[in-house]
Amino acid sequence: MKMITFLTDFGRKSSYVAQMKGVASSLSDARLIDITHDVQPHNIREAAFSLKNVVDYFPDGTVHVVVIDPGVGTDRKGLVITTKSQILVGPDNGVLIPAAKHLGDFTVYDITNTRFMLKKISNTFHGRDIFTPVAAYITKNIKFKNIGSQTKEFVDLEFPSPIIKEGKIYGEILYVDDFGNLITNIENGVAEKYFSYGKKIKVDLKDKTFFVSFERTYGKVNVYDLVLLKGSQGFLEVSVNQGSASADLGIKSGGQISFSII
Amino acid sequence: MKMITFLTDFGRKSSYVAQMKGVASSLSDARLIDITHDVQPHNIREAAFSLKNVVDYFPDGTVHVVVIDPGVGTDRKGLVITTKSQILVGPDNGVLIPAAKHLGDFTVYDITNTRFMLKKISNTFHGRDIFTPVAAYITKNIKFKNIGSQTKEFVDLEFPSPIIKEGKIYGEILYVDDFGNLITNIENGVAEKYFSYGKKIKVDLKDKTFFVSFERTYGKVNVYDLVLLKGSQGFLEVSVNQGSASADLGIKSGGQISFSII
Amino acid sequence: MKMITFLTDFGRKSSYVAQMKGVASSLSDARLIDITHDVQPHNIREAAFSLKNVVDYFPDGTVHVVVIDPGVGTDRKGLVITTKSQILVGPDNGVLIPAAKHLGDFTVYDITNTRFMLKKISNTFHGRDIFTPVAAYITKNIKFKNIGSQTKEFVDLEFPSPIIKEGKIYGEILYVDDFGNLITNIENGVAEKYFSYGKKIKVDLKDKTFFVSFERTYGKVNVYDLVLLKGSQGFLEVSVNQGSASADLGIKSGGQISFSII
Repeated sequence: MKMITFLTDFGRKSSYVAQMKGVASSLSDARLIDITHDVQPHNIREAAFSLKNVVDYFPDGTVHVVVIDPGVGTDRKGLVITTKSQILVGPDNGVLIPAAKHLGDFTVYDITNTRFMLKKISNTFHGRDIFTPVAAYITKNIKFKNIGSQTKEFVDLEFPSPIIKEGKIYGEILYVDDFGNLITNIENGVAEKYFSYGKKIKVDLKDKTFFVSFERTYGKVNVYDLVLLKGSQGFLEVSVNQGSASADLGIKSGGQISFSII
Repeated sequence: MKMITFLTDFGRKSSYVAQMKGVASSLSDARLIDITHDVQPHNIREAAFSLKNVVDYFPDGTVHVVVIDPGVGTDRKGLVITTKSQILVGPDNGVLIPAAKHLGDFTVYDITNTRFMLKKISNTFHGRDIFTPVAAYITKNIKFKNIGSQTKEFVDLEFPSPIIKEGKIYGEILYVDDFGNLITNIENGVAEKYFSYGKKIKVDLKDKTFFVSFERTYGKVNVYDLVLLKGSQGFLEVSVNQGSASADLGIKSGGQISFSII
Repeated sequence: MKMITFLTDFGRKSSYVAQMKGVASSLSDARLIDITHDVQPHNIREAAFSLKNVVDYFPDGTVHVVVIDPGVGTDRKGLVITTKSQILVGPDNGVLIPAAKHLGDFTVYDITNTRFMLKKISNTFHGRDIFTPVAAYITKNIKFKNIGSQTKEFVDLEFPSPIIKEGKIYGEILYVDDFGNLITNIENGVAEKYFSYGKKIKVDLKDKTFFVSFERTYGKVNVYDLVLLKGSQGFLEVSVNQGSASADLGIKSGGQISFSII
């Protein structure tokens, strides 16, 4: 089964996403799946994080269309990136790169062939007019080299790695989900190496210092208590059992966070 | 046509729902349909109400995956419930039970066979790692007894019945929808038995007492006026014509409500 | 491939949309696509605008179900409108008409044949009980004349045209999207005729007068600056580069706007 996914910052009110799905459905019978359309407007890093985390769960050959595109209409390139297993389509602003690196063996093509675009191309909605038709044609097995030429030049994007020094893990909050979980850039394996289950860890976050228990599950702490968990996205999370760490700690998006390991 | 539905409290921002859909699409070509992902976080009763109300409209064989799961990672069981016509998959916290009773002739299985789960199982996202792959395998016609053994022990959940005494129907608001309609636990048939169309009914709600007309349609009262209606979900609703009863009456979720029948 | 789309004001919390999709899936294997469910409740013009703008991107034969229906249960008719290429189903309140005119050669049928409705019809949810099953049957190639008789009487809806006089274009804001772009009723072609790229245009909006540059792309102005653009929906838009014109100008929905052309 062929599949096209959509990841945008369009919100839910307008018909922009549906316009893309109409274009895709006109050209291909691939299944259409929403990743999310509630990325904070123009937040390339947030979208890159969501894309990188979702690809492992999709089958080989899935084509992901990503439209977080503040540079639309300028001379920023449009890219198709092939990888070991899946294909990424979107603007050249870094949003595709963490997923491309994660999937591995990636090749970047600069979309230039107007044959795979809509006839009428707006200056403000390449997601509909270029990226979606290109994705639809990819599910029809066109040759990638016909879309445009390979390029080594693209905007890179790297999530910061945590730094371990002087008895602390210095990390960053990469994502805050709708539950209010704070997802860090500290891989679960790192957390497991330095923390013991049931132990209270000293945390520095903005101007606050507090202790949080590292546990296997939410249910190990009282309802409404903070808890540190190996998260489902592969990274250490600061959560509240049946509550919102985001609300309780006043953290709405990214920022520095550190954990004492002594 | 095979079908899998998804009902969660994940919200719309993260890619968690898409991760489940990727898993399902990797294992099955069943159609994937969203029930809703905007259940109030951890609100088992609200999700149970939505599930119970939706099943009548789905064809036999539909598999519903429900992930309102505050107990994830603890020793709460994961369940597959077969019924006369449809199959329910989710945590053992009561969320599946009103729909199971409504569908009838139900049998509960305790999910234990890891063959139908993802290889790597997180402690915080069984919706993706267990419930979705189990649902996908069910659409491939595996035998239920291979998923796990039958059990008679599960967390029950019962919506309260209204009480009729001393000239009043004492009910409860079970659900408030996005229009602000207040959906009670009083079945349309009960309302019809005790109320006459066009008659004003005395209502007690929190600290307020007021009169509302029982009508066949919104349009029978003026715009912005309160109205009592037999609702589309099978229960008496307090509504405002082209407005929000929730906003006007200051009711955001459940609570007691009573109606005078004399 | 057969397709049914859904456009409602139901919001995302309830299972109402899923109830419609269950009905559709029970009767037809057509692909189901959401246009949006976040139309402002009861806002017929907003929904009409979204529908009109989306149809060009869907293939011939697509059936669009629209449920913005404050008059549900009254004697307002339910309509099927056939056009040159696509089919519209919904209430007789004008919401379908701009799209019907845009698609061209339209014929209006008054839905009366209960054979194509659910057996049990509520007074408050014809979207599920009438419009969706009718749409599903249409994808099964029933004859339109069997749904009901043709009618010349229907509620009309016309978007206002801009007026050009005394050195000004007097227009209207028809839509505000989730980015905060203000979409006017001034066609891109009109804007291009009267404005030059790079030129500052004097704008009157509510009690404010200000100058905005007419540009080809967002990126031609500084981040957070206002910009006038030919929009992707075919109309002149007032936008902010990587920001929200709606927030900056305090405009949440429609209203008069004028542009100096001298």
